Amino acid sequence: MANIDIDTIKRLKDLTGVGLTDAKTALVEADGDFDKALEEMRKKGLTKADKRGEREARAGIIGNYNHDNRIGVLVEVNCETDFVARNEIFTNFVKDIAMHIAASAPQYVSMDDISESDTVSARAEFSDKAKADGKPESMIEQIVEGMLKKHFAERCLMDQPFIKNPDQTVGDYVKEHIAKLGENIVVRRFSRLALGEVN
Amino acid sequence: MANIDIDTIKRLKDLTGVGLTDAKTALVEADGDFDKALEEMRKKGLTKADKRGEREARAGIIGNYNHDNRIGVLVEVNCETDFVARNEIFTNFVKDIAMHIAASAPQYVSMDDISESDTVSARAEFSDKAKADGKPESMIEQIVEGMLKKHFAERCLMDQPFIKNPDQTVGDYVKEHIAKLGENIVVRRFSRLALGEVN
Repeated sequence: MANIDIDTIKRLKDLTGVGLTDAKTALVEADGDFDKALEEMRKKGLTKADKRGEREARAGIIGNYNHDNRIGVLVEVNCETDFVARNEIFTNFVKDIAMHIAASAPQYVSMDDISESDTVSARAEFSDKAKADGKPESMIEQIVEGMLKKHFAERCLMDQPFIKNPDQTVGDYVKEHIAKLGENIVVRRFSRLALGEVN
Repeated sequence: MANIDIDTIKRLKDLTGVGLTDAKTALVEADGDFDKALEEMRKKGLTKADKRGEREARAGIIGNYNHDNRIGVLVEVNCETDFVARNEIFTNFVKDIAMHIAASAPQYVSMDDISESDTVSARAEFSDKAKADGKPESMIEQIVEGMLKKHFAERCLMDQPFIKNPDQTVGDYVKEHIAKLGENIVVRRFSRLALGEVN
């Protein structure tokens, strides 16, 4: 049996919202491989976070963060009840998200928010680049798709590495709090202004 | 000679950036009529604020305001130097502007920011309304222009009555601070998010 330490078990527990025993069982079955354990739990529908992610989120708060009067961020984060909206864990979580946005300057919340015109213009740009670089014609479509995926993942809040813990994405950090708070949480939209930037 | 009290003289002085004597002279010449005195000074190019308004503003701050975690505002206000950007009068002024935006929900900074498509759709709507109300054909253009002017003035930050002193517009409040701080000040842009609003 793989050597599984308590911190890893706790991390899986927090991320999925299950009990300690279930988290340990999943890790044992995956020979201590964290990602594999998480993947298996998701496949089996064991993670409470994923189930909660489907429920409606209508309460919440507008969080804000201001860095040195030079970068300002607003973010709307929804949850299900005013009770959670007032919870300190939730308000600190929203502050973290706002701080992350200030530091990492995402352009979209998630892939769903990318407009058709942004996709079209990025695709044209990468296609031109691949051709200019002399890539074989048969490979261009695949290369361009790869570049698009990377380009937008870097610009989507949910796919960015979380600044306070780059081992997880912001999306993972949200799921961790869905599990921790027992309610669906949705980062709905944000606004970021930097002094003097061209918009 | 009209009875002109010191508060009125000071107010004109603050708004225009001239000295007390010049402000008093202007008021005496206008028989104590504040608006007339201001108008005459502007015509003669005597107000320093108007002259400063043409200079470039590149420093500044991103101000923010959060009402009860339900309405958040960011505003970029530019001035000419970091020295003024750090001045407490300036930072308090920016906070006031942000608070005003939270309360009054403008859609534009000024008339210059209204898009052609917003004008076109508002014009069509008011024209339909005037016709439906049975207004005479010959009057419709004039009526629609009046409705457009009112509609957009209500939605432009610079034309809104300032919440802390509805006797002046936000634009007047900006000019007052241009005079007070001796630098051009430009409200460049803002963002306002209200919890749960449809955008």
